[in-house]
Amino acid sequence: MTTQMATEIAEQPEAVARTLEALKPLRADLARLAEGCRHVLFVARGSSDNAAIYGRYLMETHAHRPAALAAPSVATHYHANLDLSDALVVCVSQSGETKEIIETLTWAADCGARTVAVTNDGASALAEAADLALVTHAGVERAVPATKTYTTQLAAMAVLATALAPKPTELDEDLDRAPQEMARLAAEAAGVEEAAAKIALTQETLVSGRGLLFGTALEVALKLEETCLRPVRGLSYADLRHGPIAVVDHDIVAIVVAPPDGPVLDGLTEVAADLRERGAATIGIGGDEAFATASTLHVPGPDLPEAVAPLATVVPAQLIVETLARRLGLDPDSPRGLSKVTQTDE
Amino acid sequence: MTTQMATEIAEQPEAVARTLEALKPLRADLARLAEGCRHVLFVARGSSDNAAIYGRYLMETHAHRPAALAAPSVATHYHANLDLSDALVVCVSQSGETKEIIETLTWAADCGARTVAVTNDGASALAEAADLALVTHAGVERAVPATKTYTTQLAAMAVLATALAPKPTELDEDLDRAPQEMARLAAEAAGVEEAAAKIALTQETLVSGRGLLFGTALEVALKLEETCLRPVRGLSYADLRHGPIAVVDHDIVAIVVAPPDGPVLDGLTEVAADLRERGAATIGIGGDEAFATASTLHVPGPDLPEAVAPLATVVPAQLIVETLARRLGLDPDSPRGLSKVTQTDE
Repeated sequence: MTTQMATEIAEQPEAVARTLEALKPLRADLARLAEGCRHVLFVARGSSDNAAIYGRYLMETHAHRPAALAAPSVATHYHANLDLSDALVVCVSQSGETKEIIETLTWAADCGARTVAVTNDGASALAEAADLALVTHAGVERAVPATKTYTTQLAAMAVLATALAPKPTELDEDLDRAPQEMARLAAEAAGVEEAAAKIALTQETLVSGRGLLFGTALEVALKLEETCLRPVRGLSYADLRHGPIAVVDHDIVAIVVAPPDGPVLDGLTEVAADLRERGAATIGIGGDEAFATASTLHVPGPDLPEAVAPLATVVPAQLIVETLARRLGLDPDSPRGLSKVTQTDE
Repeated sequence: MTTQMATEIAEQPEAVARTLEALKPLRADLARLAEGCRHVLFVARGSSDNAAIYGRYLMETHAHRPAALAAPSVATHYHANLDLSDALVVCVSQSGETKEIIETLTWAADCGARTVAVTNDGASALAEAADLALVTHAGVERAVPATKTYTTQLAAMAVLATALAPKPTELDEDLDRAPQEMARLAAEAAGVEEAAAKIALTQETLVSGRGLLFGTALEVALKLEETCLRPVRGLSYADLRHGPIAVVDHDIVAIVVAPPDGPVLDGLTEVAADLRERGAATIGIGGDEAFATASTLHVPGPDLPEAVAPLATVVPAQLIVETLARRLGLDPDSPRGLSKVTQTDE
């Protein structure tokens, strides 16, 4: 029987294409709203937070605007009085109903910020409260682990970055190629069974990435953890070298997520080789030939430049998670103890 | 035999007192340097990053300036061209010799930022490169796990926040009481042996906190991981509820770090109770009576308000780590595979 999660993984190429088509026409409005904004602040939790991390890197590297992640408790618990009149605040929540995120948006507006909602529900409280809503077109998502709502959020992040970029970038054309690469990777599922089999053998897993694919690494870690019920850490390879690498030995499976090109690829290849030397089984997702050779097991990624690779690189990882959950006798659609709309302070 | 780490834990009250005395006179210079800066950006890795997280919350909640953590790869790998002319960039590194941090400082200055170094070595390259150096007075630290260099960094963060606050805050007097509370907790070591014994029984540990003590939770996780060679995750309780809580069961020890007062205490008490209900042995550090009752095992924290509690709350946790490492037959002074100055891309 096909799980809901598998069905929704397969629906992603169309969902992303629909979302790009719906959101691109909003770029002029976005640019106008962001006029004079000197920095961009993202607000999110969970998978949406991982999408926002991609948004943050893309905003700084491609739109050349300083960007950061907000700490929601500063709004919801400390009620800090900040001057955000030069900030564009982007709140990301698939349901648009997580109170913490709505409260933070309202607080940001009170602090003078201009606000954008990225949500899958155009009628949600978050969409209503924002100056402008980027509504993703994932359709209804029934499995608890976010897949198509996550990748459509990535599409929204990319549209936002192109809207705020000082001049047109190559992102545009590359983005349009993302859905077909997502579809190809989902259909081929190369290395997926082997990777799931390897992860099933251990209780210790870590996921590393960096830069534009750092959010992808965190998303793979979160999906593995919540769906397969095992603790998984996601770490930048720089942070990994600052302590946690000490615990790496032959008991661990290390997943390294890499883009096919760009300035962090060499470092990720070195980390994959280093982890393998320490005895860890290293599963490399994406990257180039040298990266594949450095890994114990290689799972091919998309043929897309680094800046848009996150939309498709996560697809084989989602397939690995879904396969592993079934192999472990778990239901990927309804992980223990989680619900679709998360409230953090109830 | 007393380990170097134990000696350095005990040296912290004096180190912090010396640091406060040395840095307070620099507040007028800091305020001048930060004039017109609309936001503050922290740059750091490892324990310094955990200190910077405290700095970030304190800056927003007590100095009312938007603050965030920088992504160093945006500088060192992507060489993004950002306008940081309205930013104060604060780079934190105990050695002052980590290339990634020095490079990011130079990049920030090129982008127009005013720069501050927080380092334990006034003659380091980082101190030389910054507009202003806040030199911590920890003295030489020989054990690889940072203890006194970390708490003196926290002191520097607090001085920075008071310098940038629009008017004098209660932080000042409270800060002066921190060293004596650190000394009291180090001398009493209440609950430390019991906590180490409990953690020794499991391979799965997680640490949670939130807000002003979120950095403390991450620091406790990092110390446990690098010193005791076991994977440990540090999570905000909000992020914990967004997925990872699904893996909590009776195999896990959960450490929750709480302030004795403030707006996040109730939430942390609920999380401690929730984790315990899921079967986890819950070690509560700090908090109030209700928090102690919610925990399986309670380790007392300081009698200091939330904003300065991080300086002392970490002390019993450091003692637990040192005790646990010895109990596991490990050398807390020289964890496997780590060195004192970390380079992330060599």
